[in-house]
Amino acid sequence: MEKPLILITNDDSYSAPGIRYLISVMRELGEVVVVAPDKPQSGMGHAITVSAPLRLQKIKSDQHYKEYFCSGTPVDCVKLAVDKVLHRKPDLLVSGINHGSNASVNIIYSGTMSAVIEGAMGHIPSVGFSLNDYSHQADFSHTGSYIKAICENILESGLPESICLNVNFPINDKKTKGIKVCRQGNAYWKEEFSERQDPHGRDYYWMMGVFENLDKGKDTDVWAIENHYVSIVPVHYDLTAHTAIPLIKKWKFDV
Amino acid sequence: MEKPLILITNDDSYSAPGIRYLISVMRELGEVVVVAPDKPQSGMGHAITVSAPLRLQKIKSDQHYKEYFCSGTPVDCVKLAVDKVLHRKPDLLVSGINHGSNASVNIIYSGTMSAVIEGAMGHIPSVGFSLNDYSHQADFSHTGSYIKAICENILESGLPESICLNVNFPINDKKTKGIKVCRQGNAYWKEEFSERQDPHGRDYYWMMGVFENLDKGKDTDVWAIENHYVSIVPVHYDLTAHTAIPLIKKWKFDV
Repeated sequence: MEKPLILITNDDSYSAPGIRYLISVMRELGEVVVVAPDKPQSGMGHAITVSAPLRLQKIKSDQHYKEYFCSGTPVDCVKLAVDKVLHRKPDLLVSGINHGSNASVNIIYSGTMSAVIEGAMGHIPSVGFSLNDYSHQADFSHTGSYIKAICENILESGLPESICLNVNFPINDKKTKGIKVCRQGNAYWKEEFSERQDPHGRDYYWMMGVFENLDKGKDTDVWAIENHYVSIVPVHYDLTAHTAIPLIKKWKFDV
Repeated sequence: MEKPLILITNDDSYSAPGIRYLISVMRELGEVVVVAPDKPQSGMGHAITVSAPLRLQKIKSDQHYKEYFCSGTPVDCVKLAVDKVLHRKPDLLVSGINHGSNASVNIIYSGTMSAVIEGAMGHIPSVGFSLNDYSHQADFSHTGSYIKAICENILESGLPESICLNVNFPINDKKTKGIKVCRQGNAYWKEEFSERQDPHGRDYYWMMGVFENLDKGKDTDVWAIENHYVSIVPVHYDLTAHTAIPLIKKWKFDV
């Protein structure tokens, strides 16, 4: 049987320990092609590069493995990989492992998860993996068996049309309890900028923020990873608030 | 009665004709503060600037009007405006008028609509306006009365928690028929890169794309703007595919 073709990307760049670990796991499952950003692209959301050209550089190639880095965003990487590297849809797209949680609203800012959503939009079974540990020295060793089990399910059963997965791992404290299928927790990053002055007396601002969890539910991804579970949230990209349609229809528009 | 405080941003930059028109309309409704990007930021999605400092420059100020430009993305503009310019939540956030449609999946790539979603995440009643005309010379004159009517409804009735609006206008062919409350159309931007060589013989790629409408429904935003209607889609940011949760729960994870 032919091995599945697996596309790997991330937002922390091709050299991040998270993607290196993910590559090692995925090479056990199929033919792997990596197209990842050449520099960190965290917080890039679903950004694409429309006003500048993109570069693509092949860095490794053998019979079952190819690796490229790309000058663009994670979503650029997916688009360029499909059109110019693979010349077809891969059987699976995996993104990550992100250094830091993409649970709750983090998904909206995340380049790692935006690559996954781009995959789903292009009818590719797609899944993103993130670890609730921002450190460069993070220990990913508890994630491999879960990643394999999840990917094997996807390769066997597929995913429903327009749906991808957001998988978050708890920090590796040797207490991981198993998988919970969750909903996206409701939270908010409250903005708090650090205001400074440059040597010429002009102000500048560093973005900071405080994560405010507004959701006490035990069925959320935030609850799961804080309680030693691996969270899986099925994700779609229909942003319509269907329940609000009747309300807006009642408005009077006197135009 | 105190006038409402209105924050305006966009992704085409503070100098784009679309935001200049929107400012002129909104000044009839309240106190206006503009914090918009200093350069075009189309296709930036929900990108934020975490690895570089941001600059903010005041360019106009009088009793009922202030205008700034910001070196960051549209989402940066919203966050910086709330924390460092307004020092409180505004009563209304409006974004646009975008040069080009943000109907269907365009919302996911759009900086204009990401600013709106950021507003909703911050509990600000927020609405984005876009015109289905990419030209710099686009005629916005048919949009003003609709924009006012929609904003008056929001200021009077508010919006449900976590919900914002995506409003798209048809091109101005003098045939605009009125408002339709819609759902997000299902479509896909098929990637097609133009491959070129620089003078040193190295390849580079320009992103192009073909919009593929996969949705024949007459209740979509794409249908509405193609048929001379103004579309309003209520938008939320819970990306959970709730209907897929039971399916994923059935998977066997042999970890």
